[in-house]
Amino acid sequence: MSMLAALLAALPLPMVQAQPEAPPPQSPGEIVAAAPLSEWRSIEARDLLVIDLAPAGRGKQRRVVIQLVPAPYSTGWVDNIRRLASAHWWDGTAVVRVQDNYVVQWGDPTEKKPLPAGIRSVPESAYVTPLDAIGATQPTIEGRDLSERAGQAARLSEIAIRDTVTPRAPQGWHERDSYAEWVELIGGWPIAVSGDAATIPHCYGMVGVGRNLSPDTGSGAELYAVIGQAPRHLDRNIAIVGRVVAGMEHLSGLTRGTGDLGFYKRASERTPIVRVRLASELPARERPRFEYLSTEGEAFARYVAERANRRDAFFNVPAGGVDICNLPVPVRAVAP
Amino acid sequence: MSMLAALLAALPLPMVQAQPEAPPPQSPGEIVAAAPLSEWRSIEARDLLVIDLAPAGRGKQRRVVIQLVPAPYSTGWVDNIRRLASAHWWDGTAVVRVQDNYVVQWGDPTEKKPLPAGIRSVPESAYVTPLDAIGATQPTIEGRDLSERAGQAARLSEIAIRDTVTPRAPQGWHERDSYAEWVELIGGWPIAVSGDAATIPHCYGMVGVGRNLSPDTGSGAELYAVIGQAPRHLDRNIAIVGRVVAGMEHLSGLTRGTGDLGFYKRASERTPIVRVRLASELPARERPRFEYLSTEGEAFARYVAERANRRDAFFNVPAGGVDICNLPVPVRAVAP
Repeated sequence: MSMLAALLAALPLPMVQAQPEAPPPQSPGEIVAAAPLSEWRSIEARDLLVIDLAPAGRGKQRRVVIQLVPAPYSTGWVDNIRRLASAHWWDGTAVVRVQDNYVVQWGDPTEKKPLPAGIRSVPESAYVTPLDAIGATQPTIEGRDLSERAGQAARLSEIAIRDTVTPRAPQGWHERDSYAEWVELIGGWPIAVSGDAATIPHCYGMVGVGRNLSPDTGSGAELYAVIGQAPRHLDRNIAIVGRVVAGMEHLSGLTRGTGDLGFYKRASERTPIVRVRLASELPARERPRFEYLSTEGEAFARYVAERANRRDAFFNVPAGGVDICNLPVPVRAVAP
Repeated sequence: MSMLAALLAALPLPMVQAQPEAPPPQSPGEIVAAAPLSEWRSIEARDLLVIDLAPAGRGKQRRVVIQLVPAPYSTGWVDNIRRLASAHWWDGTAVVRVQDNYVVQWGDPTEKKPLPAGIRSVPESAYVTPLDAIGATQPTIEGRDLSERAGQAARLSEIAIRDTVTPRAPQGWHERDSYAEWVELIGGWPIAVSGDAATIPHCYGMVGVGRNLSPDTGSGAELYAVIGQAPRHLDRNIAIVGRVVAGMEHLSGLTRGTGDLGFYKRASERTPIVRVRLASELPARERPRFEYLSTEGEAFARYVAERANRRDAFFNVPAGGVDICNLPVPVRAVAP
C-alpha cells in the first residue's frame, strides 16, 4: 500500500463515527461554559485597551475593549500604542471609516495631530515573527517530524490529508489553508505559518495598524478592526496588534461610509471617540477584567474538535474541518 | 524524482515571479472595471427579490436586492420564495434577529402568519446538488484526470500542492479548503464539492433558509443573510437560496440584537419590512437591473489570479492563494 494510503489508514476515524456509547455531544459553547477555572487565563490590565465611543441615543454607553497581542508579536507597534494611550492621544479622535465586509477604522480625522514623543517607526520585517521565538514547532503526523526541507512537498500533502479527518484532542490540531502552510493556535492566539515565520491572521475582530504605501508601516495611531470575511490577503502585509474582546457590536454595527473605501463623506457621520485608556491606567475599580480559554488545555481541544464536526442537534452533516478564523479563542469578562 | 516533486517541477511559477516585462499589475477592481461587455451576464428579473425596509432617519430609502440561485440549486425553496413574494406575504414582516459575526434574519415575528397556498416541504437531500446536474467536472492537474476513485488520496494531495501556486488564468482554478474536497466557481456562483455533490457555500452576503431541527428544512418564509466570517459549518445543513447584490449595508449595519442568538428583545427594535417583490412583478420602469461577471471569462480568471496574488501598490507579499469566500462574483447595477 502506498505511503499516502498507509497514512490514511493510520489516522484516527472521524469523531462522528466514534463510539456509539459516547456521551451526548456538547456544543462548542457548552464545552466552553463547562471549562474548569484552571483552563482560564487572566489578561493583564496593561494588555487591555479601553475605548469609550460617544454614547448612542438615550445616552447608551458604547465601550470597546481590545486585547493587545503579547510579545514577541508586533512589539514595536504595541509599544507605540501604549504610549499613545498614556498620552491620551486618541481622546477627541473618531471612527472615520466603515467599509462593509472589510474594516472599521479610527484615528485623527485631520491626520495632522502631532504624535507624542517616543513613537518609533517599526520595520516591515516585524510583520512576521520567527517560529522559534514563539515556541511553535513544525507539525507532525503520527509522531513523524515533517520539518526536513526535502520533505516540504510531502509535508503539505500529508497535512492536506490530515485535514480530511477530525482534529484530534487534546493536541496537535494543524490545518493548512489558502493563505498559509499551516495554521494553529498557540498561547491564546491563532497563528498562520509560512516558511519559518508566523503571523497572526486577519480574522474577524482582529485589530491592525493602518499604513500608507511601503516602506511605511504605520505608527499605531491609525487602527482598524476587521468586520467581515477574513481579509487574509493582508496577512504579512500589515501589523496585527490586537483583537476586540468586548463591544465589537459597537463597531460592526456602525453605518457604512459612502465615500471611497468606506470613509465618511461628512464629519457629522463620524463616531466620536471620547477617550482611550490602558486598563492599567484606569482607577482600579473602573478596570474591566477578562480571561481567555487556554489554547493548550483539554477544553479548548474539545472546542476545536466540535467546531470542526458539529454534532449538536441542529446539525445533520459535520464539516470535517474548520477554518482558523472560525475558531475564535473564547474570552469572558470577569467581575472586578 | 518522486511523483510529487515531478508535479511541483511541472507546475507554472507563481505570477509574482513572472516576466519582468509584464505590464503594471491591475488591482482586482481595475480588472473588473475593464472587463468587456461581452463578459457580463444579465440577471433575469424573476431572479431578483426586492426588499424595501422601512426608511431610515430623514426618510432615507433602504432597499435590499437579492439574486435567487438558478436551477438546479435549491429549486424547491426558490419556488416557495417566488410564491411568497407573489402573495406579498412578507409585506408587514420584519428583521427579527441580528447576531454579530453571523446572520441577519427576517420573517414573521409572530410565527403564526398562515403561508400562502402551494408552499411545499423540500427534502433534506436538496441541500446538495449532483455534480453532473451543474456541469462540474473533477479537477485535473496538468491535464491528468484525478477523478478515479482509487486516486482520492492522491487527488487531495495534488490539489493541496496546486494550491501553493498561483491559480492559472484563464481556466481551471480549484482549491480545497477546510470544508470541502474542492471549491470553484461555475455559472456565476461558488460551489463547494464533497463526494459527488455540490453546495453553494455560506459566504458573506449569501442568503439561506431558516429552519427548525431536522427533518424540518424550512419553507423559505424565514430567511437570513450572512454578515460575518463565512459560517461554512452550515454548508450541506441549510439551503442557500440567493445572495445580496445590493443594499447589503442596510442589513449588516443594523443594531445587533441583545436576546439569545441575537434576536431583538423588544418589537420596537425590529426593522419593519414594507414590501418584498420579485423584480419581474414590479412595473417595468421600477425594476432594478443587474449584471454579473461571467465566471467562465478571461476577466474573471484574471480577477481570481490577482485576488490570490495581490501585486497592486499596497501589497508587499502576495498570498499565494485565496479563499472561495474572498472571491465574490462581481455584480453591478445597470440603468433600467
